[in-house]
Amino acid sequence: MNQTAAFRTETDSLGAVEIPALAAWSVQTQRAIDNFPITGVPISQYPELIAALAMVKKACALANSGLGVLSAARADAIVAVCDEIIAGRHHNQFAVDVMQGGAGTSTNMNANEVIANLGLLKLGHRYGDYAELHPNDHVNRSQSTNDVYPTAIRLAVLARTVPLIEAMQQLVSAFHAKGEEFTGIMKVGRTQLQDAVPMPLGAEFRGFANTINEDIQRLADLSALLTEVNLGGTAIGTGINAPEAFRELAVTHLREISGEPLVSAADLIEASSDLGAFVMFSSTLKRIAIKLSKICNDLRLMASGPRAGLGEIILPAVQAGSSIMPGKVNPVIPEVVNQVCFQAIGNDLTVTMAAEAGQFQLNAMEPVIIHKVMETMGSLTQAMDVLRSRCVQGIIADEARCAALLEGSLVHVTALVPVIGYEAATKLAKFAQAHGFSLRQAAGGALPEALAAQVMENLAGE
Amino acid sequence: MNQTAAFRTETDSLGAVEIPALAAWSVQTQRAIDNFPITGVPISQYPELIAALAMVKKACALANSGLGVLSAARADAIVAVCDEIIAGRHHNQFAVDVMQGGAGTSTNMNANEVIANLGLLKLGHRYGDYAELHPNDHVNRSQSTNDVYPTAIRLAVLARTVPLIEAMQQLVSAFHAKGEEFTGIMKVGRTQLQDAVPMPLGAEFRGFANTINEDIQRLADLSALLTEVNLGGTAIGTGINAPEAFRELAVTHLREISGEPLVSAADLIEASSDLGAFVMFSSTLKRIAIKLSKICNDLRLMASGPRAGLGEIILPAVQAGSSIMPGKVNPVIPEVVNQVCFQAIGNDLTVTMAAEAGQFQLNAMEPVIIHKVMETMGSLTQAMDVLRSRCVQGIIADEARCAALLEGSLVHVTALVPVIGYEAATKLAKFAQAHGFSLRQAAGGALPEALAAQVMENLAGE
Amino acid sequence: MNQTAAFRTETDSLGAVEIPALAAWSVQTQRAIDNFPITGVPISQYPELIAALAMVKKACALANSGLGVLSAARADAIVAVCDEIIAGRHHNQFAVDVMQGGAGTSTNMNANEVIANLGLLKLGHRYGDYAELHPNDHVNRSQSTNDVYPTAIRLAVLARTVPLIEAMQQLVSAFHAKGEEFTGIMKVGRTQLQDAVPMPLGAEFRGFANTINEDIQRLADLSALLTEVNLGGTAIGTGINAPEAFRELAVTHLREISGEPLVSAADLIEASSDLGAFVMFSSTLKRIAIKLSKICNDLRLMASGPRAGLGEIILPAVQAGSSIMPGKVNPVIPEVVNQVCFQAIGNDLTVTMAAEAGQFQLNAMEPVIIHKVMETMGSLTQAMDVLRSRCVQGIIADEARCAALLEGSLVHVTALVPVIGYEAATKLAKFAQAHGFSLRQAAGGALPEALAAQVMENLAGE
Amino acid sequence: MNQTAAFRTETDSLGAVEIPALAAWSVQTQRAIDNFPITGVPISQYPELIAALAMVKKACALANSGLGVLSAARADAIVAVCDEIIAGRHHNQFAVDVMQGGAGTSTNMNANEVIANLGLLKLGHRYGDYAELHPNDHVNRSQSTNDVYPTAIRLAVLARTVPLIEAMQQLVSAFHAKGEEFTGIMKVGRTQLQDAVPMPLGAEFRGFANTINEDIQRLADLSALLTEVNLGGTAIGTGINAPEAFRELAVTHLREISGEPLVSAADLIEASSDLGAFVMFSSTLKRIAIKLSKICNDLRLMASGPRAGLGEIILPAVQAGSSIMPGKVNPVIPEVVNQVCFQAIGNDLTVTMAAEAGQFQLNAMEPVIIHKVMETMGSLTQAMDVLRSRCVQGIIADEARCAALLEGSLVHVTALVPVIGYEAATKLAKFAQAHGFSLRQAAGGALPEALAAQVMENLAGE
Repeated sequence: MNQTAAFRTETDSLGAVEIPALAAWSVQTQRAIDNFPITGVPISQYPELIAALAMVKKACALANSGLGVLSAARADAIVAVCDEIIAGRHHNQFAVDVMQGGAGTSTNMNANEVIANLGLLKLGHRYGDYAELHPNDHVNRSQSTNDVYPTAIRLAVLARTVPLIEAMQQLVSAFHAKGEEFTGIMKVGRTQLQDAVPMPLGAEFRGFANTINEDIQRLADLSALLTEVNLGGTAIGTGINAPEAFRELAVTHLREISGEPLVSAADLIEASSDLGAFVMFSSTLKRIAIKLSKICNDLRLMASGPRAGLGEIILPAVQAGSSIMPGKVNPVIPEVVNQVCFQAIGNDLTVTMAAEAGQFQLNAMEPVIIHKVMETMGSLTQAMDVLRSRCVQGIIADEARCAALLEGSLVHVTALVPVIGYEAATKLAKFAQAHGFSLRQAAGGALPEALAAQVMENLAGE
Repeated sequence: MNQTAAFRTETDSLGAVEIPALAAWSVQTQRAIDNFPITGVPISQYPELIAALAMVKKACALANSGLGVLSAARADAIVAVCDEIIAGRHHNQFAVDVMQGGAGTSTNMNANEVIANLGLLKLGHRYGDYAELHPNDHVNRSQSTNDVYPTAIRLAVLARTVPLIEAMQQLVSAFHAKGEEFTGIMKVGRTQLQDAVPMPLGAEFRGFANTINEDIQRLADLSALLTEVNLGGTAIGTGINAPEAFRELAVTHLREISGEPLVSAADLIEASSDLGAFVMFSSTLKRIAIKLSKICNDLRLMASGPRAGLGEIILPAVQAGSSIMPGKVNPVIPEVVNQVCFQAIGNDLTVTMAAEAGQFQLNAMEPVIIHKVMETMGSLTQAMDVLRSRCVQGIIADEARCAALLEGSLVHVTALVPVIGYEAATKLAKFAQAHGFSLRQAAGGALPEALAAQVMENLAGE
Repeated sequence: MNQTAAFRTETDSLGAVEIPALAAWSVQTQRAIDNFPITGVPISQYPELIAALAMVKKACALANSGLGVLSAARADAIVAVCDEIIAGRHHNQFAVDVMQGGAGTSTNMNANEVIANLGLLKLGHRYGDYAELHPNDHVNRSQSTNDVYPTAIRLAVLARTVPLIEAMQQLVSAFHAKGEEFTGIMKVGRTQLQDAVPMPLGAEFRGFANTINEDIQRLADLSALLTEVNLGGTAIGTGINAPEAFRELAVTHLREISGEPLVSAADLIEASSDLGAFVMFSSTLKRIAIKLSKICNDLRLMASGPRAGLGEIILPAVQAGSSIMPGKVNPVIPEVVNQVCFQAIGNDLTVTMAAEAGQFQLNAMEPVIIHKVMETMGSLTQAMDVLRSRCVQGIIADEARCAALLEGSLVHVTALVPVIGYEAATKLAKFAQAHGFSLRQAAGGALPEALAAQVMENLAGE
Repeated sequence: MNQTAAFRTETDSLGAVEIPALAAWSVQTQRAIDNFPITGVPISQYPELIAALAMVKKACALANSGLGVLSAARADAIVAVCDEIIAGRHHNQFAVDVMQGGAGTSTNMNANEVIANLGLLKLGHRYGDYAELHPNDHVNRSQSTNDVYPTAIRLAVLARTVPLIEAMQQLVSAFHAKGEEFTGIMKVGRTQLQDAVPMPLGAEFRGFANTINEDIQRLADLSALLTEVNLGGTAIGTGINAPEAFRELAVTHLREISGEPLVSAADLIEASSDLGAFVMFSSTLKRIAIKLSKICNDLRLMASGPRAGLGEIILPAVQAGSSIMPGKVNPVIPEVVNQVCFQAIGNDLTVTMAAEAGQFQLNAMEPVIIHKVMETMGSLTQAMDVLRSRCVQGIIADEARCAALLEGSLVHVTALVPVIGYEAATKLAKFAQAHGFSLRQAAGGALPEALAAQVMENLAGE
């Protein structure tokens, strides 16, 4: 192998392959790169996944070493490389496409090969001297893609949950602050887009805060399902080729390395093929998306206008709204959040179909599941950040408009029902609406004198 | 067999089965009834499907008879029964559940058995004398569920397309009529829920008409895909057990009986397992649902109020809106249409998953496909009928409100762009909005004198 | 009103309406029946919903009476009627369509009117003497559709959870029993449809049991979200027209009546429009559907054959499989379960879209949500019952076939990796496959003598 | 402005903005870049979209110039820049995120600003001298985002259809070639995963070819809907600020520039908000995905084994299958195609939700629609290319295995039905299966002598 050449040649049982000289990966990674030119996006797009793979490899090296099936020197080399990867180095060596066949084997082998070669350098050898440190026999020792990959993708999602929840918490705070700010502003409450009964504008914003806040709890609940891992199950959950004590030891190491409260799945055979935890997690992301989209729809409606809409609130103007209509300001931030939510819901369907497509002892469709879940999480996090910083925090209430709409409405009629009964109140409201009257103006014409008097008395405080 | 007993006993290779004495069906139907107690809804829920089955059986009997593989007497009996079924009789004999395993075999056997037994009565025999007229050997002669059922469900959908298109056409007419009625009413056009430029209210309703009208064309285009049938392909498309000339002859008869322009699929093996025509058809229903839902959303928004909303139109009050809020009138008809649309979109997903689940030479999931497509079609038809008759036809425009919103808005600023340029126009609009001015009021304060003069001149005609 | 006539006439603010003389409902129900001829399926299709409505009405009557805003006599009458409805009587009086606009107002009014009229009979009055017992002023006292309906639909789903979980438990037991029965049968484990490593057939069935069992826990977890109710919030969550203490008292009564551990939502305004609990619950049903579908796919694959498939298990023959192919037995039960699962997934999308469509203080699309969730639950329950009783319990393992496939395979090669290394083992496996050899036969030809000897030694025990 | 500084400052009505000195874009683009940090993927990800924008701008400049509302010098500058963009230059200047609010305004303004500044250079001015060439007043003259963007995204999709159809055609050819190659190989046909009747393996592959081929026709049909454009409608379809003749002239120019058979929409107001063409197009992509996924499922099943599966075909080994199981070869190419298909189906749902979310005179969610449609098209194209080149073209039939499975099966029994009847044939098949016999072996034991003789005679040729 000529180190100054652009490529080096390596060989596996299928034949020889040219590999870029500077690449730390080996044959199987290179074949995967060639086999899956689907999106052009490498798995390093998701740094949490790369770090998670390294954590798993480190935990397994420590367990193998502890159990005497891997020499201390090799284990040390593996651990040293993994620590660098966890620290954010070498991610550009993780080059296989996010969309790939093979249930993650290419991703796992990319990790095995890169760690082996970088470890070889640490051991004073060169790329390719696999007799000294072998991707399969040493780095992947006591492991299979089928337990490594499901474990790593769970860790990756758990890691990405942190910024997501942080974005949610900050958005909750922003809505709560607006809820306090708008507490004293009374407005027309609306059901089915029709004027209903009065309410404080602040309550509406507190409702937004509370509904997102509930989802933080849901996310915490459901992400707990992801802490159950099948590491040690190897190929199909029977633990073939792993020492008896490996499973517990590896999970213990990984718990410590990752800081996540991992537990071993009760039924490793079931766990090897089941994606139920991802289904629930993705569903929770979908729920967040549904709520966020509803909130953005409400914000856009409340801000409609500026003159011929509801106009109860004013969103910050973050850019000119139109290439043709001067002065137009559009709710572009809520709109982009809506779209991120639609993407989240579509991605959940992709996850659904992939989860259903498992067969026998494995689900080969895991790569698209992790791809779509991570994409949704990333874009939801970003979307909530811009929603908070570029929209919610700058929302201004149009108090005069809220008051005018309330005053002009008939929504105080409901409070009269306990006084004059549903039917008389209905007559009053219909009479007022038909004549363009206020309730006070309508009372005399719509109702018998006694009821009208009660109406006047009860509306006195309005 | 005791005819006065509640049950008679029949036997197949799996053993004896009790059948209600009055039931014309036989063992396989009874087993299916027992095997699939899923929804409680029998296939007779869809009369078009029952008629379609009878059409197929009639066409095949005529073809078999013409080719000499079925005696004239038997063919006559089959045809006579089929004619009665096509005319709407005996549908209560089609008792298997709409949700069933077996790729429609139970539905096909229900037809074969009922036709055989009713035919036996015509031939002077009794239920169960299958040597004289056998469900499989005679009624199902030269056929398989795998060509009969796909053919019948296509005919059923085509039949149900007629009332659906009629409902669409009537809705188009209703929207067009309102479009004409509202032609002279100018209003604020809105993009992104923000005031845009002026437009006639009538144009909005004509747009609703035109967009639905396009879908009639789409439905016609895509339903044409359903006229391609695999009858004659028998079990897997190789035509096993059907005489050479059967395929062409049966399709010719069926074309005449059904009045549909049926053609034989070019590749019967491909056609036996492919549900692509249903995928496109269901997608077209989804498209209709998307448009209808958007229209209903617009109607509900335009009718929002009555005081604190847009209030540009008034929907007919078809029922009291609230159990607690007197006089409240809600847009209940558009709301139910929205829900029917959401069901249509969900059903399309069920169709998608079922279509994807085909394996090798058949798609066993056809029953849920036809169930969901027919459900969607039926509810869309009903929904459009009520939308037309209980909502659209009674819509009233609030002309004064439309005019007031338009007058109070700044939407005429766009027309000034060619005169004073985008940037000056933007300054003008922002100044007006900030001060609560009209454009005329704002011109002097916002712009240099020359530009202001141009503004005044150009707004003179407003 | 002539009691012997077919119809009686009642009047509301919109005018007079003809009502069937025997119907206990009144004007608003009749208008709803006329307005929503969508599916033809009345809400009584879901008896749990009717009972739940009566429970809510009873709890509210007791609370109103306790708070002195409803006379004891009226409360007694209401309670007596509700008790009868809870016991299963009068359900045929609940006649509005499952698909309806108006956010459940028609359903709530159907309950209010029927309870009022039946209560009037108990009080010695006649249908329509609403001054004595009024649907709105008395039966609906301190309530709104917007808190009654969301509360009732939660109770309905909770009630339907019971048979669903029972069906799941029984299915789990059936799979567990098969798991025990098949414990000693070794077979080829498969990943990505390729021969992997050996495993017991029993472990596969225990995996099915365990994966469904997990879902029972998920369902319990997520159904807990449904115990949070907004009763007492009335129109939009502000509690207008309900006495101060009503909320707590009504929920306390309802907790006792229903036996469900209900709690009052923390933010009633948020709770009035939020359908998040249904989103998660429906997602959980989707997860069950995904798993069930995967299991049925596996069963169908394992049972493929009888001669030219995998043939590892034999499903019970519950009906003849084909109208043309004699002796064919198809996996019709798993197939119908697949279809029920596809429906569940499609219904979840309908729920998703409806949940996203909430606006401001209410989600008007609740009726389609409860319709689809109940449909899914009912069909999943039935599907699991037939899967258990007509399929799983009768499954027979073909031990000889399992053994033959295992013996003929090369899956023991993996166990050699720790002995001879991944690369040598790969050479061995490829050599064996290329020559149609067993591993023992291939060892000499594929490997150096020393390694071959190790192979022979390690395979000795096979 | 200091040209050597890293940034220059530009100002709009919202204030001053720092812009990278080398960037040709201006304020609105920069604000959009800052407002939408959602995916990190710029619109230049889709070069067809950038080129399409330039085509639209060029066509409009020519039309404006022809109508005398744009000077020849300015038009020439615009056209020159557009030609460079169409040729593939300057794409890195299109930097706004693929996910954006504002209905495409940011994309349109990105184009307007870049073209203005690059045009200014051509005219001998500097970036920012907008009095000479203004993004809105000149480049966007007679246009609005609301007609430019919908037109451009249609052109982009049409352009991307070309490589998609080419990939489909090549895949069709590859399947056809295999169909011819495998014509003489008889195998067991399967329905519902059960042995059905004999068929040639070649027919199965021809079926794959034909089913994809049909989709090419569908794609051609449905992409025709995209040729209807609303250019000239400007803001909401009323054509405000565009000269009378602009619409026809601009579309004529664009037809020539793009080479697409564009037509002007009949109702521009309807066309401005309607995404129906994208709904159908995306549905067609979904249909392709459904079919491709089914085909890949079939390939994976047929290739299952190598020893304990069906094993009728052998897929090319493109990479090692397992990190733990030596010699395992997995169907990784079909697997990645499955995942691409699941993504396409999920993306279609995103498109569905976005299309439903249109309001009044616009659909603000267009950006996510074009993003997802382009993503699906790109990945389907790549997936079909690898499916063809790395899988289908290298498939080998295992003729001996096909023959052995056929010979060992009972599928010839169906051909006996016309001879001995369905019931006798059923007895024969069940007897054979129960005893592990062939049909010939079973005939004597299962049937009366005469029938048995007929069986022997008819099977003689087997």
